[in-house]
Amino acid sequence: MARRSTRKNAFYAQSGGVTAVINASACGVIETARKHRSEIGKVYAGRNGIIGALTEDLIDTSKESARAIAALRYTPAGAFGSCRYKLKSLEENRREYERLIEVFDAHNIGYFFYNGGGDSADTCLKVSQLAKSMGYPIQAIHVPKTVDNDLPITDNCPGFGSVAKYIATSVREASFDVASMAKTSTKVFIVEVMGRHAGWIAAAGALASTEDCELPVVVLFPEITFDRKKFMAAVDAKVAKYGYCSVVVSEGVKSPDGRFLADQGLRDAFGHAQLGGVAPVVASMIKEDLGLKYHWAVADYLQRAARHIASKTDVDQAYAVGQAAVQMALAGKNSVMPAIVRKSDKPYRWAIGEAPLKKVANVEKMMPKGFISRDGFGITPRCRRYLEPLIRGEDFPPFKNGLPQYVRLKNVAVPRRLDTDFEI
Amino acid sequence: MARRSTRKNAFYAQSGGVTAVINASACGVIETARKHRSEIGKVYAGRNGIIGALTEDLIDTSKESARAIAALRYTPAGAFGSCRYKLKSLEENRREYERLIEVFDAHNIGYFFYNGGGDSADTCLKVSQLAKSMGYPIQAIHVPKTVDNDLPITDNCPGFGSVAKYIATSVREASFDVASMAKTSTKVFIVEVMGRHAGWIAAAGALASTEDCELPVVVLFPEITFDRKKFMAAVDAKVAKYGYCSVVVSEGVKSPDGRFLADQGLRDAFGHAQLGGVAPVVASMIKEDLGLKYHWAVADYLQRAARHIASKTDVDQAYAVGQAAVQMALAGKNSVMPAIVRKSDKPYRWAIGEAPLKKVANVEKMMPKGFISRDGFGITPRCRRYLEPLIRGEDFPPFKNGLPQYVRLKNVAVPRRLDTDFEI
Repeated sequence: MARRSTRKNAFYAQSGGVTAVINASACGVIETARKHRSEIGKVYAGRNGIIGALTEDLIDTSKESARAIAALRYTPAGAFGSCRYKLKSLEENRREYERLIEVFDAHNIGYFFYNGGGDSADTCLKVSQLAKSMGYPIQAIHVPKTVDNDLPITDNCPGFGSVAKYIATSVREASFDVASMAKTSTKVFIVEVMGRHAGWIAAAGALASTEDCELPVVVLFPEITFDRKKFMAAVDAKVAKYGYCSVVVSEGVKSPDGRFLADQGLRDAFGHAQLGGVAPVVASMIKEDLGLKYHWAVADYLQRAARHIASKTDVDQAYAVGQAAVQMALAGKNSVMPAIVRKSDKPYRWAIGEAPLKKVANVEKMMPKGFISRDGFGITPRCRRYLEPLIRGEDFPPFKNGLPQYVRLKNVAVPRRLDTDFEI
Repeated sequence: MARRSTRKNAFYAQSGGVTAVINASACGVIETARKHRSEIGKVYAGRNGIIGALTEDLIDTSKESARAIAALRYTPAGAFGSCRYKLKSLEENRREYERLIEVFDAHNIGYFFYNGGGDSADTCLKVSQLAKSMGYPIQAIHVPKTVDNDLPITDNCPGFGSVAKYIATSVREASFDVASMAKTSTKVFIVEVMGRHAGWIAAAGALASTEDCELPVVVLFPEITFDRKKFMAAVDAKVAKYGYCSVVVSEGVKSPDGRFLADQGLRDAFGHAQLGGVAPVVASMIKEDLGLKYHWAVADYLQRAARHIASKTDVDQAYAVGQAAVQMALAGKNSVMPAIVRKSDKPYRWAIGEAPLKKVANVEKMMPKGFISRDGFGITPRCRRYLEPLIRGEDFPPFKNGLPQYVRLKNVAVPRRLDTDFEI
C-alpha cells in the first residue's frame, strides 16, 4: 500500500436522485473539514458520485474558495454530479469494492462520506467492512438524503422537507386558482407528485389546507389501492361542498390489478406505446365519471430542484448532518449515520443523534398506518403534527436580475495516481 | 332610471384565466378608490367576474378591512372569482349589455373597471358605447391582465412577468438537477408551458441561461412549426456539448399538418381517446430518435398561480395599472386602458400611459419575428433585453408555519335591488 501520512484525506460523494439541499450537506461536510485541517487533509469529491471513485475521477474541493463552498448551502442539485449506480453485493462484485479501496489508498483517504438514501447506506457499510478485512480501515459515514423520506431511525430525511414545502405551497396556490375559475371553467385540479413507494410527498399536499385556510384536497397515496368509485365520490363531495377540488396523486398509485395506475397501455395513432403520467389518467377518469372540467400538472424535477422555496428547517438539517458526519469521523466513529432526532413537536426542537449503519441499510420506512385518514384520501392530525415543522422557515437564495444565483464549482480534477482503468 | 347621487359607485370584475398578480390590480383599484371617497362611493366587485354583474351578484368591498385589501397585493388568483364568459357581440346579444346597464343603474354605478385580456377590453368598449347610447353613461376603463402577454400598445401585460420568472427559475433549477444526473441517468428534461398562440412564456424559459450561468436550453415556440429532424439535431448537439439539455415546449406547438403536437390521437387499452400534454409526446420522440433518458413536467396552473416567486416588477405594474385606472376615471376618461410604457431597458424605467380601447380590443400582439433566434429554438439578444427587466425583483408573500399566507375575503353580497333574474 502506498504513501501514507497520519493526516488522512476525506472522500465525499453524492448518490442517487439529487435534492434542493444535498449541496447544503456537502457544504456542512467541507466547511467542517476545513475547520479541522490538522486532522483532515483535503476533501475529495467523486465526480458523478461513486463512479468518480471507481474511475479515479476525483475533484479537489480545496481548489474552491470559501465563498463558493458557502454558496453550496443555497444551490440545488448535485454540485459534483451524482449517479444512479448501485454497487452489487460483495459476493457478486467484490472487484468494485476492492477498487474503491485501491483508489482510497492511492489518495490517502481515511474518511468516506456517502450522501444518499438506503442503497448508499448499504454501500457505505460494506465499504467499511471490506476495508477492515483488507487491512485498510476507512471510517465510513453515511450522510442521509432522500426526498422519499424513507430512511429508518432518522426522524426525517434532508431533501424531503423542501419538496414538502414546494408541494404544499403549490397545492395552496393552484387551489386558489381553481377556486377562482370554478364557476364557469375548471373545477378539479390534479397534480402528480413523486414517491413511487411511500406517500410522504403526497401527504405534504394535504398541508396546503390549514385551520385558517381550509381547502378541499383529495390525496391518492401509493399505500392505498386505487378505488375509482370511492375516489369519485370523494371528489364529488368536495366539489359539491366547495365548488372545486384539488387532487394530489402520487406517481406510485396502483390499480386493483397491481399495475401502476399511470400504466394505461397508451398507444399513439401509429400504435406505439406511450408513457404518460398518472395525472392525465386521473383527469380523464374525472371527466368520464363526473363530467367536470379539469386541469392537471406534473411537477417532476421541479419539485425536488425548487431551492427557491426550500424549507429553512430542511436546509439547516441538511447542513447539520454534513457537519455531524465530519464530527463523528473526528471522534473515531465508523459505520454510522447522523440521524435527526425530534425532541418535541411544539415548539419544534431537534438534535443530531447517531444511527448504526447496520440498522439503516436496506430498511425502508413507510408511512405509519395512523398517518393516513380512515377514508384513505387525507392525513391524520398525527401526520400533520409530524409534517408541519419540516416545512417551516424560508431560506431564499440570493437573486440577481430576477433569477436565483446558484454556484457552479470549478471541479478541478485530482491528478490520477493509478495506472489502471476501471470499466463500470 | 333609479336613485342617483352625484357620487357614483364603481364596479370591478376579474375576467378569464387568473394570474399571480391580478389581485394586486384589484388592490390598486380599491385602495385608490378609497382615497377618493368624496368622488367614488363604494367599489362593488362582480362575484365570478362579469357573471356577477349579469346576475346582480355583487360583492361589497367596503366590508373588507384595509388590511385585507392590502393583502390582495400578495395573494394570487381571483379574490372575487373570475369567469370564462365572453359576452356576445352587440348584434347577437344586446340583451346582455342592456342587463349590465340595468344592474349598474340599479346600484348607481358610474365606473366600470374590467380586469382582463383582449376579450374583456372589447366588452369594456361595448359597454361604454351602449351605455352612452342608452343615456346612462358609464366610464369604462380596462385594466390589463394576461399571462399570455398578447395585449397591444402596453409594453407588457401584468401577470406575464411573474409566470416568466417562475418558468425561468424552474428551468434553471431543473437544469442543475439534470446536469447532476446526466452521467448515468436523465439527459433531457422537458417542461411544458402555457401559451397556445404566442410564445412569450416559452421564451422566458430561455432566460434561465445567462452569461454568468450558461445552460443548454432548447425552446419550442408555437410560432414555429415543429420540425422533428431539426429539433432532434438541436437537442443532440446540446447533449453532445453539455452532456444534457433542457427543453421548454409551448402547449401550442403544432405539427406540419397543422394539428397541435399534443394531439397524437392517444388511446388507452380500451381504445378510449386520451388527452395528454405535449411534454410526454416530445419526450417519447426523444427516446425514440435519440435513445436518451428523459424526465418531463407540465407546469400548468402552478406557473400562473406561483405568487411565492412573483416578479416585483410585475407586482408593481399590476398595482400601478389598477391605481391608474381609478385616476383615469377621476380625470373623466372613458374607453381607455392604462398601458405600461417602457422608458428604457438599462436601467429599466417605465411609466403608465393611456391606450384607447378602440386600439386594444381584438388586437393580438404576437412575438416579433426578431425575437426568435434564426434556428427557431431560442431567443435573440433583443428579446432578452425586452424580457429581462420583467422578471426583476422579488416580492415574497408573508409566510406562516412554512406556508404563504394569502388572504380570503369575506365577499359580502350587496343586497339585490332588481326583482328580475337573468339566465346566462
